[in-house]
Order: sequence, then C-alpha cells, then structure tokens
Amino acid sequence: MQDTHISLAHGNGGRYMRELIEEIFAKHLSNPELDVQADAVPLLLAEGECMFTTDGFTVQPLEFPGGNIGSLAVHGTTNDLAVAGAIPKYLSLNAFIEEGLEISTLDRIIKTLAETAAEIGVKVVAGDTKVLPRGEGGGLYLATTGIGVRHGHVLSMKNIQHGDAILVSGPVGDHGIAVMLAREAFGLRGDLQSDAASVLDLTTAAMQYKNLRFMRDPTRGGIATVCSELLRATGMGIRLMQDQLPVRDAVQSVCDMLGYDPMYLACEGRVVAIVKNIDANKLLKTWRSIDKGLEAAIIGHIDSELDQVIMQTEIGGERIIDELEDDPLPRIC
Amino acid sequence: MQDTHISLAHGNGGRYMRELIEEIFAKHLSNPELDVQADAVPLLLAEGECMFTTDGFTVQPLEFPGGNIGSLAVHGTTNDLAVAGAIPKYLSLNAFIEEGLEISTLDRIIKTLAETAAEIGVKVVAGDTKVLPRGEGGGLYLATTGIGVRHGHVLSMKNIQHGDAILVSGPVGDHGIAVMLAREAFGLRGDLQSDAASVLDLTTAAMQYKNLRFMRDPTRGGIATVCSELLRATGMGIRLMQDQLPVRDAVQSVCDMLGYDPMYLACEGRVVAIVKNIDANKLLKTWRSIDKGLEAAIIGHIDSELDQVIMQTEIGGERIIDELEDDPLPRIC
Repeated sequence: MQDTHISLAHGNGGRYMRELIEEIFAKHLSNPELDVQADAVPLLLAEGECMFTTDGFTVQPLEFPGGNIGSLAVHGTTNDLAVAGAIPKYLSLNAFIEEGLEISTLDRIIKTLAETAAEIGVKVVAGDTKVLPRGEGGGLYLATTGIGVRHGHVLSMKNIQHGDAILVSGPVGDHGIAVMLAREAFGLRGDLQSDAASVLDLTTAAMQYKNLRFMRDPTRGGIATVCSELLRATGMGIRLMQDQLPVRDAVQSVCDMLGYDPMYLACEGRVVAIVKNIDANKLLKTWRSIDKGLEAAIIGHIDSELDQVIMQTEIGGERIIDELEDDPLPRIC
Repeated sequence: MQDTHISLAHGNGGRYMRELIEEIFAKHLSNPELDVQADAVPLLLAEGECMFTTDGFTVQPLEFPGGNIGSLAVHGTTNDLAVAGAIPKYLSLNAFIEEGLEISTLDRIIKTLAETAAEIGVKVVAGDTKVLPRGEGGGLYLATTGIGVRHGHVLSMKNIQHGDAILVSGPVGDHGIAVMLAREAFGLRGDLQSDAASVLDLTTAAMQYKNLRFMRDPTRGGIATVCSELLRATGMGIRLMQDQLPVRDAVQSVCDMLGYDPMYLACEGRVVAIVKNIDANKLLKTWRSIDKGLEAAIIGHIDSELDQVIMQTEIGGERIIDELEDDPLPRIC
C-alpha cells in the first residue's frame, strides 16, 4: 500500500479497500476463524448459554494515556459480557474511517486492538470497513459486537434486595480525566492513565459467590448512572458513603478545579457489584487479592426505605445523586 | 421528549440518552429478548451451526426511493447470512448519530428498520447509540451484526469447479443508480427504486440444489467485484456474456449518460450463485418462479483456461473486467 492517508477510494469495495483490509485488518487480526473472503463465518461455541452485546466507540482523541480507541473497543464490549457473567469468545468489528486519517495511526490502533483481544482470549471473526468523507477530523469510529458463553448463576437486577452491599473494584473516573487531559482542552496536562482494562478476572472471581446479585461496568455517566439505573429498575433507593468511594488524588484535583463530580465520570476497567451483605467482606477480600482490585471498596447499600440515591458526604451532610443531565465530558468512550 | 433535533446531550449516558432510547429505539424494536437494561442478553439458538457477520452503513442520502439506511442495515447483514446458507435470527444495532439530525427522521428510519426486521423474522436484541459532534451533516451511520443458523450443506468458494454456471437473480445496479438519482447530483431525476430487499427466499430455494457451490450478494463494487473475488480465490477465470446480463433500461440510460458500467454498480437485493452446470437451468427455473427472481439469468461460466474475467460484448468483442480502482459512487451502502 503506497498511501499515507485514507481516501474515499479505500471504501469502494475494490483494490484499495482490499489492500487496506489485507495490510492492516487481516494482518493484525489474523486467526483461523477470520475469513476475510466469507460473507459470514461459522462459530464454534462451547457448552453454555450464548450471551450477546454491542457497543460503539467515538472517543476523542483516538489515542490517550493507557490506551486507544482500539483497546477501548475490545474492553468495552468484552467487559459488558464479563459483568453479565459470561466468558467473551468472539467479536465483530466495524470501522468507520474518516477520509484523511493517517494510515500509520490506523495501523497502530488495529494492532493494539488485536493485542488486546489476544490477551483476553477473544477472537475477531467478522468485520467491515466504511470510509466517511472528510468531516471535522474525528478520524475513526468503531463498533464491536461480542458473543460469550455464560458460566455460573444468572445475574439480574431482579435479584437485588434491601440491605445488599454495593462494591466498586477500584478508583473511579481515571478514564474520564485521562481522556480529558489528553485533549489539553483546558491547558491542563497530567500523567494520569486511563483505567481501560479487562475486568474478566474480577468478574470471574466474583461469580464464585452465589449471593452475587448483579454486576455492571460504570462507563458513560459513571457510578452515578449505574445507581440511577438500579433505582429505576428496582424501585429501591441507595445510600452511598463518600468517604468509602475510591478516587485518586489526581482525579479529585482536576474535578475540584473544573467542577466535575467523580461520581459521573466514566471508568473503563472497573466493576460495580451488588452482593448480599453477608458476603460483602468476602468479595472485598477476594477482589483485593487481585491486582486490578487492590483498591476495591464497599461504597454503600441498597435501602428500600429510600426512593433516591443519597450520598453521605465526608463532612456529615447528605446530597442527592440525580440522573445525569448535562454531559460533562462528551466522546469519552 | 421535547427536542426536535439531536444534541450532544443525547449521547451522554444520562436522562436525554435514556429518553431517546426509550422513545425511539425501544419503542420500535420492542421484543421479549431486547432488554435495554442489560449489559448482554442471552440468545436462544435453534439446533445448527451458528453463523456470524457484520456490516456498516453510510448511505447518503439517508432516505431514497425503495428504502432508507434502516432497511438497508437489516437487508445488508441478513443477506450476508442468507447467501452463506443461514437463516438470520438475531441482530445487534449500533447507531452513530450526528448532532443536528432531525429526531423525526431518526424515528422514521428506526421504524422502517424494525418493520424490515419483523418481515424477515430477525430480532434486534442488542444496541448502542453514540452521538457525534456536528460534522458535514451526514446525519447517521449504522452498523449491524447478525447471527444465523446454518441449514443444508456448506457453501464455499473452494467448491467451485471449471464449467460451473454463474447466475444472477435479477437486474443489476438498481440500488446504485436509485441512490445516485436521490442525490440529484447531476441534475438528474428518475423514478427508479432501489432493489434493497431480503434475498432469503431466493437463497433458501437455491439451497435445495446440492450442486450449489457458493452464493454472494453483489453490493459495493457490484458483479464485477464478485467476479474479481472469485478469480482471486479460485485461480480460475470467468467468461461472462453481456447480452445475458439483466440491466433495466433506466439504469442503462443513466450509465450511458454518465459513463458508469452496470457491472460495478451496487445491488442490495440480488444474489450471484455458482452452481454445477447441469443444475443451472433448474436453479434458473426455480428462481424465476419466485417474485424476486422473475428476471434471473445465467450470465456466464467458470473457465479454468482463463486467468481473467472476460466479458463477451453484445457486438461480438471481448473486454476484460478488472478489479475496481476508482469509486464511481461513494457512500452507496
């Protein structure tokens, strides 16, 4: 391939598109089940119930400390399978590439995507690329759809009961602030890394507890949005303890400067788990024995006597955690 | 929902996004397996091997005679399953929505998408929406990933042999020209409709022939691109007969005016089938007994003595059908 930048011809179904697919996508993603010549591929599924999920990715900038849109597109979708109690097996990948994107950037991103998939043990077996005419320079949008196989018991918000404990597996908001700093939008810089990572070891460890009710990864809208969804689905309120919420100093500093609330910031490698209170400390200990869970915490409880999400502040007050209205950080994932 | 146009807030993970999903996507796509609250959904798969495929859609304009990007996103992906010998069962849907898109347009498109899925008997069981900042006004990109269950024998380019016949199920290029006319880019107008449609009845009928080797839907790059792919994969050439290729007069007229070649124009509701020559007339008769196959034709044969795709012209000459280089009609699907 002679070109340095993507042109509309790379989306035409002809030679340019074939070369782009062969020299970037097929090269990095090569595996026995990826047949770039086939309209559809057969899947070899292990025993167990099939789980299915999808996610789109529009993060800006495309590359940020701790990852890029390629690793994010794998983590986002495989984490959705993981928190549903499944082992991720297969992915499809759609790439919408903007005319003018540097081909070397695309190559780096797809290489990272392939490496991330290999680490998790998930195979990209189907894909498609389209080229978009030059717009504002965003460069690349990805969509991934994942198939996994469920192991263990069925998780559901319907299992949640009064008194259940709410755990988070690590500090919140790293991804949101890391991406924001990478934009240098406020003249701020920092060395904070995104938390983007697979949560599969955390979720697999949590599944040993039969009293585990439900898990979710707090991405867009953060912990506050997970709590709003729980409130809406269960009809039961939540009491959170601010002094238990793990937040890195660097994240808190940026939040203080710009008026952000860490509760609403996106994470891409954390799990929120709801577990019967008698197993809360056991799950906490289990998570803390895993690298990615060293800073796990019990952050609150389900409270059927409340009809809101209430946070007890460190200074002894209370504040209501409402559903997100304004978007503090668009295009974070 | 009070708004008339999409804003960035509709992508934020909060109230605006929830309302958009509830009032458009969930409303139209409602089915027992679509749980907008779940991170991943369980799939109930019938007996048989699972087939998997994905496709992205960037057609411009979003609505055109004979369909819109919503129907296209269902037909494109379910047709890829159909030509692989599978019955489509489930879809995931990713919507990348541009800031400023009229919500009434989005509603019409998702309604059509839902109706199209219902006609084919495929369920949308997972989805995600992202909002893109205002660019050049493209409005909407969709990606769909499909799961189907294979029935009958395994189709593969590897089955193809010297002398096999090549059939097409109907006139070529209607989709390409209909979308081009909808752009009014050359001051041209016409009442040609896109051929966008499910090919499932055509492929199911064809699967009864054990000598059916392979099928493909000639989308981006048209029949010429399917032939180039066959040449590349099998190492055998192809001899086509121009006078057998079904092309509507309206399509041919526009091609003559603008210098397009119908061989390279996209179809979205046609099938190319490769079948052992002794069954070619039987398959032709079968297809012609189906509404969508009334104008089916045998257009050529596999010829191992050639190393090119050669078309015998109506005036008795020969011309080489090369791999597509320039893109005659970008953003056609």
